[in-house]
Amino acid sequence: MSKSGFRHPNRVAALRSLIQEQEIDGMLISDPHNRRYLSGFIGTAGYLFITEAEAVLATDFRYTEQAADQATGFQVSKIQGRLSEWFPTLLGDLDIKSLGFESDNLTVSGLKTFEDALAEREIEVALEPKSGDTAKIRAIKDQGEIQLLQKAIDIGDAAFEETAANLTPGMTEKEAAWEFEKAIRERGAECLSFDTIVANGPNAARPHHQTGDTKLQEGQTIVFDCGATYQGYCSDLTRTVILGEADKEVARIYNIVLEAQEVAIENVTSGITGGEADAIARKIIDEAGYADNFGHSLGHGLGLQVHEEPNVGPRGTTPLEDGMPFTIEPGIYLPGWGGVRIEDVVVLENGRARVLSHAAKMRF
Amino acid sequence: MSKSGFRHPNRVAALRSLIQEQEIDGMLISDPHNRRYLSGFIGTAGYLFITEAEAVLATDFRYTEQAADQATGFQVSKIQGRLSEWFPTLLGDLDIKSLGFESDNLTVSGLKTFEDALAEREIEVALEPKSGDTAKIRAIKDQGEIQLLQKAIDIGDAAFEETAANLTPGMTEKEAAWEFEKAIRERGAECLSFDTIVANGPNAARPHHQTGDTKLQEGQTIVFDCGATYQGYCSDLTRTVILGEADKEVARIYNIVLEAQEVAIENVTSGITGGEADAIARKIIDEAGYADNFGHSLGHGLGLQVHEEPNVGPRGTTPLEDGMPFTIEPGIYLPGWGGVRIEDVVVLENGRARVLSHAAKMRF
Repeated sequence: MSKSGFRHPNRVAALRSLIQEQEIDGMLISDPHNRRYLSGFIGTAGYLFITEAEAVLATDFRYTEQAADQATGFQVSKIQGRLSEWFPTLLGDLDIKSLGFESDNLTVSGLKTFEDALAEREIEVALEPKSGDTAKIRAIKDQGEIQLLQKAIDIGDAAFEETAANLTPGMTEKEAAWEFEKAIRERGAECLSFDTIVANGPNAARPHHQTGDTKLQEGQTIVFDCGATYQGYCSDLTRTVILGEADKEVARIYNIVLEAQEVAIENVTSGITGGEADAIARKIIDEAGYADNFGHSLGHGLGLQVHEEPNVGPRGTTPLEDGMPFTIEPGIYLPGWGGVRIEDVVVLENGRARVLSHAAKMRF
Repeated sequence: MSKSGFRHPNRVAALRSLIQEQEIDGMLISDPHNRRYLSGFIGTAGYLFITEAEAVLATDFRYTEQAADQATGFQVSKIQGRLSEWFPTLLGDLDIKSLGFESDNLTVSGLKTFEDALAEREIEVALEPKSGDTAKIRAIKDQGEIQLLQKAIDIGDAAFEETAANLTPGMTEKEAAWEFEKAIRERGAECLSFDTIVANGPNAARPHHQTGDTKLQEGQTIVFDCGATYQGYCSDLTRTVILGEADKEVARIYNIVLEAQEVAIENVTSGITGGEADAIARKIIDEAGYADNFGHSLGHGLGLQVHEEPNVGPRGTTPLEDGMPFTIEPGIYLPGWGGVRIEDVVVLENGRARVLSHAAKMRF
């Protein structure tokens, strides 16, 4: 069995440190994003078993070849027959008496299947629920990850700018969203990182508006929230667009949100908590009289998932650290009128935020 | 609270029968497809609580308006504050002492959150794992569902035929898949029902080939497995295409698969099990000498998910019934050479299979 030569040795080492701290013999990784993150294997089925000394990727016949290719350093174990056969045998081979599992991923039925397999063979292994370990490791990105994230962001930025340039009154929200999707795909993205939100006028008052058949109109705010996935990494961008003339009220509210965003980008530093970062932007919106109209978090971490650690909202207690990318996306939402949200991705480096998003913003 | 006027009264009634049989007071539905199926609500967050007398959809502020619109007959309960506040209160209001939950959907952490909420308020409610009840109800489709499925299939058929007409040697598998995706979207599909498989030549020997940069070539089998989602319903179609001339060996193997498919369509009847249906096609492939080269099931049910009940494979013990749509997709896979798979969707009506897929097949 391989003990070195991992595609991502630091990630496996970080998980092993947590395994040691928690006094378990190993971890069963079932979450697909964590499986990919730790091993490099991008197939859609399989389990990782990681102990201090060993690292095994168990998958079925469809994926064993691909797994051997991608999950360098992992021993690939072919799943054959019933779970009650391969699972206890594998635990025996790895000398595991206590196995952590990802309780945020494994279903109640899934856990029971593993427990029954052990009971059937009369093997005593403690299965211990664990939550958030790999998520915590994933919050801080390495240089390779930042490069992939930047590529996803660049694709999203270019696709948004192309789409925005072609928005016209009368086009529906759905048509606009589809133009964006085609544009990211033609630039090499695998897929959207989430369903594109295009919200025109009063629809923009709902941060999670479901893109529909409403036609874009001149003079109203159009919130365009969109992202692309590139080699697994997710971009996330929001721009607020106005077709034709923006009246004074639109420009005034837009500028409050823009100021809140720019001041937050300027002032977030490594060491403050997500909650403290959120408060920087929220103070500006509160003081402008819109305390009740910014009903979501300032931002969120992103990477292999479009929402991941750290929490950059009022309840965020995790200190922000160098190497963490996250969004900064204040907004103001006024029922019946519309909304404004402006979102960039930043990464903390040498204690300060570097902006990764480069799509143009409107200026009034 | 509403006791009638459901969007889908028969579905709720069927679940209530199962609740009664199992001697529990109610079911907590957390699976998003089951939530949609039972209530008509298509938002992405929320729980159903269904008892003999009551039906509640609990969701957060983002979705309450949409829920009231879509989930006719359900009382919409706005989730506010902590789970330990709203969950025990709701169970009290509904007079639930024993609550089934979907163990195939709820994670171990999710269950613990519910259990902790009850413990914090010192409330004794038995949370009982249940598996597969709604899935069983979903296997038989009503007329409205068959219409939506037919529409999804029609979109997929038309998009496939347009794409197939434009396939040329030198085009990559990925490019061909993207042409199909654009074609379904331009016809009103929401999205793909699964990642399109385009597998050229030797790649086609793997039933689950990951569509890549291989170029399409003349004379080789190209397996094209594709589907569209329309109003939630999933189509699924496979055609094997040959560009240019098919040599005798290609035509011979193709015709074995086609015969296996046609004979299965002709002979499946309501009342036989999925396993017996599978055996009809498998016998023909076995007798042609390819017993070891048809390494997957004959088919599967489909609806709101692309794979659902019934199991139409060697281990399928469920009797097939009128109103069940499922795929019939035999194949032969020869490592190094390629593969052939041909797939249609059928629905059982008056004891026999009616074919819903109409995309042209090659004939030799």
